Amino acid sequence: MILPTYEDVLAAAGRIEGHAHKTPVLTSRTANEEVGAELFFKCENLQRMGAFKFRGAFNSLAKFDELQRKAGVVAFSSGNHAQGVALSARILGIPATIVMPHDAPAAKVAATRGYGATVVQYDRYTEDREAIGRTLAQEHGFTLIPPYDHPDVIAGQGTAAKELFEEVGRLDALFVCLGGGGLLSGTALSTRALAPDCKLYGVEPEAGNDGQRSLRSGSIVHIDTPVTIADGAQTQYLGNYTFDIIRRDVNDIYTASDAQLVEAMRFFAERMKMVVEPTGCLGFAAVRELKAQLQGKRVGVIVTGGNIDLQRYAALLAG
Amino acid sequence: MILPTYEDVLAAAGRIEGHAHKTPVLTSRTANEEVGAELFFKCENLQRMGAFKFRGAFNSLAKFDELQRKAGVVAFSSGNHAQGVALSARILGIPATIVMPHDAPAAKVAATRGYGATVVQYDRYTEDREAIGRTLAQEHGFTLIPPYDHPDVIAGQGTAAKELFEEVGRLDALFVCLGGGGLLSGTALSTRALAPDCKLYGVEPEAGNDGQRSLRSGSIVHIDTPVTIADGAQTQYLGNYTFDIIRRDVNDIYTASDAQLVEAMRFFAERMKMVVEPTGCLGFAAVRELKAQLQGKRVGVIVTGGNIDLQRYAALLAG
Repeated sequence: MILPTYEDVLAAAGRIEGHAHKTPVLTSRTANEEVGAELFFKCENLQRMGAFKFRGAFNSLAKFDELQRKAGVVAFSSGNHAQGVALSARILGIPATIVMPHDAPAAKVAATRGYGATVVQYDRYTEDREAIGRTLAQEHGFTLIPPYDHPDVIAGQGTAAKELFEEVGRLDALFVCLGGGGLLSGTALSTRALAPDCKLYGVEPEAGNDGQRSLRSGSIVHIDTPVTIADGAQTQYLGNYTFDIIRRDVNDIYTASDAQLVEAMRFFAERMKMVVEPTGCLGFAAVRELKAQLQGKRVGVIVTGGNIDLQRYAALLAG
Repeated sequence: MILPTYEDVLAAAGRIEGHAHKTPVLTSRTANEEVGAELFFKCENLQRMGAFKFRGAFNSLAKFDELQRKAGVVAFSSGNHAQGVALSARILGIPATIVMPHDAPAAKVAATRGYGATVVQYDRYTEDREAIGRTLAQEHGFTLIPPYDHPDVIAGQGTAAKELFEEVGRLDALFVCLGGGGLLSGTALSTRALAPDCKLYGVEPEAGNDGQRSLRSGSIVHIDTPVTIADGAQTQYLGNYTFDIIRRDVNDIYTASDAQLVEAMRFFAERMKMVVEPTGCLGFAAVRELKAQLQGKRVGVIVTGGNIDLQRYAALLAG
């Protein structure tokens, strides 16, 4: 297994240029005063299709050869990876098939179809989405792009931190949400290349701290699907690529509770005028909790996405 | 009466530099596809204190002489102008008194006090806030900064459009929300200097089209306080300065209904991941309605603010 490097992030940055947004880095004096640090929010909720996942998906598909392009791509996801693959495929003129649970929100199924993808639905209680994806890949010659454990996906996700460092310079610490580890490991490649002294932290839901336990035990820990509002981080285990990079490059992994995520979500809406999905709140929630150790520091936070059903968002804001 | 000019906008830009955010210009392919035009959203909801009003307030206070600084500023407003004056005064070390209705939302009163301002409350049904403000100014030597009809306020508001044109270049049309006309007239100064061929349109609430009637009749029309969710545009009449500039430089004034504002607010939340207050939705609501005449054009929209009580916002999103 050859791990991706910062060279791969650089190549990915060249591929996504002109297709992905160079998202803004926003600041908030209110947040700075509350935490006692200087915070820089890299706003991937303002990325195309509303999340950083577009970066890794586009980078992966842009590397397809002629045969792969003709045959098409398959991905399994009910979330942002599905949208990222579907949109990238549309841009690149590649047929896409997305495997989604039969009870996925109608809006997400419609959005995925809106990007021109074929949606294959499965029963999440009796069927295995990964097996369905692999079968489709074999039968039709599709290339399977997994949501995080793939060198091209990891390299693509690393471009967000690259932009952040290039825009704001030195940081003392950087907080990144952690599900399967695609963003965190890609961020690690950019951080170690551009800011070797910057502390890098992953943040996962309190209900599912498999990453924290994996890092501390030295081997990948599997858990049941955690019950949390952070639906983008309900993964059961890290990937092989992502774990090797995280183990090597990440300083520590923290957790945040659902209540902390809702508080952060309200802060983003009220003080920064941004819609952030629960998973996207993980980094800032941890920063607020750890402020004692961040006094006077320059701290980056990757705000990862803003895709949430409006009714659900309204309900969480209203409390 | 000497009207402000683009030279005053340039001077204002110098004064606010390093204090106001240079807000991002965001784009949305979904919005472009829906309207059939290329849209550029100047996001003043991401401005300090959540609205463009900070620009005009800061410019006005930064021009105070030594005596004025010592004596202090007074403003009457229950909304974004109050916050803008209070924050600017704190930054510049000027005492501030803000006259607010006794039934203003507790959060707004608290925020204004949080900026260090003294809040004087009045009964909006029996007392005249303007008279109270003028009495305070006379008794204490305060300088009164009105919310829109003042050359320094107008020049400060004009800096938003200056930034927009400098970032995106040529535009065929620009849509700006209209209350008392401070932003629209300031925008007119920048537009006529930087983009003389660009059509400039004001947009006000359907419930209170005094601006439209004033422009079409050639003299300032007074109306009762309109009943609309666009609380930042519930003005009863244009100012003397603002009307003279609008009459000279603005192509037309359109209106948007509350229902159209809510639809635009949902679009901003769902597709652009931004919290926009009802008044801030006026420009985009008009663009959607007028799309037949905007096909293939490059169109700017100033998104003016994002200050809305979270409970109310949640209720409007949920519908």
